[in-house]
Amino acid sequence: MVDANQHHQQKQVLQPVLVLGPPLIFEHFESQYSHKYTFLKAFASSLPIEQFLETHRVDPTSIRAILCNPFQRVSAEVLRLLPSLGIVVTSSIGTDHIDLAECYSRRVQVATAGGLFSEDVADLAVGLLIDVLRKISAGDRYVRRRVDEFQPWNYPLGSKVGGKRVGIVGLGKIGILVARRLEAFGCRVVYNSRKEKAFVSYPFYSNVVDLAADSDALVLCCPLTEQTYHMVNREVMLALGKEGVIVNIGRGALIDEKELVQCLMEGKIGGTGLDVFENEPNVPKELFELDNVVLSPHAAALTLECFNSTCEDVARNLEAFFSSQPLVSPIMDA
Amino acid sequence: MVDANQHHQQKQVLQPVLVLGPPLIFEHFESQYSHKYTFLKAFASSLPIEQFLETHRVDPTSIRAILCNPFQRVSAEVLRLLPSLGIVVTSSIGTDHIDLAECYSRRVQVATAGGLFSEDVADLAVGLLIDVLRKISAGDRYVRRRVDEFQPWNYPLGSKVGGKRVGIVGLGKIGILVARRLEAFGCRVVYNSRKEKAFVSYPFYSNVVDLAADSDALVLCCPLTEQTYHMVNREVMLALGKEGVIVNIGRGALIDEKELVQCLMEGKIGGTGLDVFENEPNVPKELFELDNVVLSPHAAALTLECFNSTCEDVARNLEAFFSSQPLVSPIMDA
Repeated sequence: MVDANQHHQQKQVLQPVLVLGPPLIFEHFESQYSHKYTFLKAFASSLPIEQFLETHRVDPTSIRAILCNPFQRVSAEVLRLLPSLGIVVTSSIGTDHIDLAECYSRRVQVATAGGLFSEDVADLAVGLLIDVLRKISAGDRYVRRRVDEFQPWNYPLGSKVGGKRVGIVGLGKIGILVARRLEAFGCRVVYNSRKEKAFVSYPFYSNVVDLAADSDALVLCCPLTEQTYHMVNREVMLALGKEGVIVNIGRGALIDEKELVQCLMEGKIGGTGLDVFENEPNVPKELFELDNVVLSPHAAALTLECFNSTCEDVARNLEAFFSSQPLVSPIMDA
Repeated sequence: MVDANQHHQQKQVLQPVLVLGPPLIFEHFESQYSHKYTFLKAFASSLPIEQFLETHRVDPTSIRAILCNPFQRVSAEVLRLLPSLGIVVTSSIGTDHIDLAECYSRRVQVATAGGLFSEDVADLAVGLLIDVLRKISAGDRYVRRRVDEFQPWNYPLGSKVGGKRVGIVGLGKIGILVARRLEAFGCRVVYNSRKEKAFVSYPFYSNVVDLAADSDALVLCCPLTEQTYHMVNREVMLALGKEGVIVNIGRGALIDEKELVQCLMEGKIGGTGLDVFENEPNVPKELFELDNVVLSPHAAALTLECFNSTCEDVARNLEAFFSSQPLVSPIMDA
């Protein structure tokens, strides 16, 4: 047993970590690492960071580390509040929620969760594509609605997975894993990427409209940047056509979501499987009525295995930072 | 234009085909082939076959062909009613609904729909496994329920597909296709089959309890026979364990369904994806309440591509039979 005074003294030497938004892993992480760090849970407060720190009598200069997830922005304003900040650790692969330019100019390191994400994200991408083509979620709804019996001959036909031309947008770590899986189903892979990749033989398209025109489905696997914002616009959707399917496991704003809703409602595209949305956690209400849409709660990396490895990655990156060692999975070094 | 009399005369030469239960393809098939065959739609009547024929003044000895689907039994009684019967064509791969022994002793040929089914069935098997492990249908329900926002951090974690040991029960045409797909996800395939297969290197288990004990998931791909009836019983489910997943794209009665419901409700197994049920079209009501269950309306072969090829297979088998040629996809020759 530790008495209150000892406990207080012990706490003094713990490194403070500002937690912006609960990383999915946070509850578990906290229980494992509260002997090393004092977690300042800004996510549990509705106050802006500056007032949060004031209210909790935390000296902003004492904070050297931020822990975050993709659902809260780490803005230039937040970064400027914390002059001693040395690292932002995110429990995601994506970093579009972090002002990287400001991090760079302030020499703040940025670490992401490592590579175990990629397989899980690729699995969900393929799962969503099969689901939309083969109407799995819709079929499940159909059976549950009938209450005690179903009639297969009244059920709408799905579309075969094999033989489909699938256009992968962004042939990085995740895109390659999606491609390898789809090949096993007999799909034909084509892709768009910033540059043609020397190590694959899949046909390359330098622009997304041409890719869409030659594809039965698009799978979006690229990061969100200024260049990729709304890259899937109405023109791309019309090129994809009325049987075409779009799967998005990247970021919501890769698609012009208003146009997507419009195209779905007008039957200009065939269906969509979305793990991400433009204004999370809001999902356009119109989508709830559509049977050719599969909605996933940004769950591409939500597996127990990924959760455990993310906890380890976050811990190892924080540990490395506080002991002045090289980060385990940096995207930006000081 | 054909006048009523001509039309009547023309009809006299059409071969009658007794249609038991609407094959999924039937409406389309009828529109294409009504110039060749007179379809006697027993499925549209609630009468027993004998009375149906009487009521429609059809001479039982005039009927040489039956067209059926897996949802109606072609029993010995029905076969005995039709002394001139020469062929039963089913729009399925499975033939467990047909009394094959009686067909054999009466020298009635049996033709199934050809091989295009296999890929679609394998795709759905893999789709269901991904869905159960990664909670895709459950996630879709979750997002749709929240009406306007979701919170990923409140969402239960799924389970990684890669690394799972998947026990395939029945390594035939479909089982092999399932195995090849799962390998691309990094799953480890093990199997049970009547005999060990020389052409694969996957570990073989001669009994299903041992297979279940060493597997994270079972995928049932075998036909329903006296030997496979209720092969997945309580003992197998307990061996599979509380994280274990069962996917069934074979036939409902491969599983002791009452025990399955019991094991799911007691948390003795982790989840299940079912395309088939023991008493179709009835589905046990208890399953409707469970979030770790994906229910599919016997839709494994319900794709547009498969529909078209099945129509062709049925037509070619009937054509071959009536012109005394060898069947295209026989499972039993006269």
